[in-house]
Amino acid sequence: MSAAFYINQEKFFVSVDCIILGFKNNELKVLVTKRKFDPMKGGRSLMGGFIQAGENIDETAVRVFEEYTGLNGLFIEQVGAYGEIGRDPGSRVISIAYYALINIELFDERLKNTHNAEWVDINNIGELVFDHNQILNDTIKVLRRKASNRPIGFNLLPEKFTLPQLQSLYEAIYQTPIDKRNFRKKLLHMDILEKLEEKDKSSSKRGAFYYTFNKEKYDNLLDQGYFFSL
Amino acid sequence: MSAAFYINQEKFFVSVDCIILGFKNNELKVLVTKRKFDPMKGGRSLMGGFIQAGENIDETAVRVFEEYTGLNGLFIEQVGAYGEIGRDPGSRVISIAYYALINIELFDERLKNTHNAEWVDINNIGELVFDHNQILNDTIKVLRRKASNRPIGFNLLPEKFTLPQLQSLYEAIYQTPIDKRNFRKKLLHMDILEKLEEKDKSSSKRGAFYYTFNKEKYDNLLDQGYFFSL
Repeated sequence: MSAAFYINQEKFFVSVDCIILGFKNNELKVLVTKRKFDPMKGGRSLMGGFIQAGENIDETAVRVFEEYTGLNGLFIEQVGAYGEIGRDPGSRVISIAYYALINIELFDERLKNTHNAEWVDINNIGELVFDHNQILNDTIKVLRRKASNRPIGFNLLPEKFTLPQLQSLYEAIYQTPIDKRNFRKKLLHMDILEKLEEKDKSSSKRGAFYYTFNKEKYDNLLDQGYFFSL
Repeated sequence: MSAAFYINQEKFFVSVDCIILGFKNNELKVLVTKRKFDPMKGGRSLMGGFIQAGENIDETAVRVFEEYTGLNGLFIEQVGAYGEIGRDPGSRVISIAYYALINIELFDERLKNTHNAEWVDINNIGELVFDHNQILNDTIKVLRRKASNRPIGFNLLPEKFTLPQLQSLYEAIYQTPIDKRNFRKKLLHMDILEKLEEKDKSSSKRGAFYYTFNKEKYDNLLDQGYFFSL
């Protein structure tokens, strides 16, 4: 039942478009699928789903992210709403974009087959359907801004990571080389990493110590007015 | 006509909520209205309107901003989408929030009567209907972030303004006193203001020179990789 004021208004399909980002082989990657239905069947697309009657927008996003990654409890954020009239040639659909940062090691590989999906370097994405290139570009801008002042990058790493891995991640996000000494100085100054005893010896003979991100320490510092800044 | 895939999906009312911000008497102000209809008739509300069939979301926002201010060509930006199921007790409405920064001197005062509207200090806003307090809070956060690295604050000032006025504006946006010397040093260093011959003598005997913002100069600097930062 709607109040009298509303009933003469138009209604719209509203979807959620989900940008699933992972980090592998020193590259930032996005999960894309080949559309299984018209319009633009076979075109490369971001993952999406329609908002259902009983769901708020965040819940739709969580459902779609889980459907395509097998993961829940992900770090997700809204990017914005996209509402050009002809953006989807199948019908007028207003879409709200969300991105998730996932630890790609936890991704359920079997879902690639289920959804005809693949991980693609963000720099090699080619043409996506509808306005999905714009949505992805906007998302990367948001990610770059947020990653510079909040420790969200850690969501893209395994729980244990090395400093060279962390630096590669930020280099992939910003697509620019980062000075190793400055980067480490800033990191150590922030004092939010825990050094482990264990070493990763896969990339060098000497090896690199593993670290973990200490969220509790970070939250305490935040309460004291401290800000993450890389 | 919708493609087959879409027709079993739910449709929703989609509205635009408009946050109209102005600057007067050294305070940042938002235009609010008393709702003229149920639900929550008489409650204080942001301005809003439903998206119509022929409009993209930006067009709805532009229409609503013009309806309530008499102005077009405004600086507007999207804040995000709000979609809690019960946010509007009248019906399920998904809302997309936009803010506009206006030169309050150009506001059509007669529209205050038409729309039962008033300008309220953002620090003295009280309770708004639905999730409008949250939308306003989110907007102020976006404004603070954007005003620190892009010259959008000038949209809130008359074309000619004094440096004390400009400083008051930033003090109102950030709700904190700003050091006059540092502020002026940064501003002059950016070299995006034009000093006029004319003085404002209303606030002191000695007077304060008027300035204008040189957008062309700013755009040139931006092309050269220069960034606004206050």
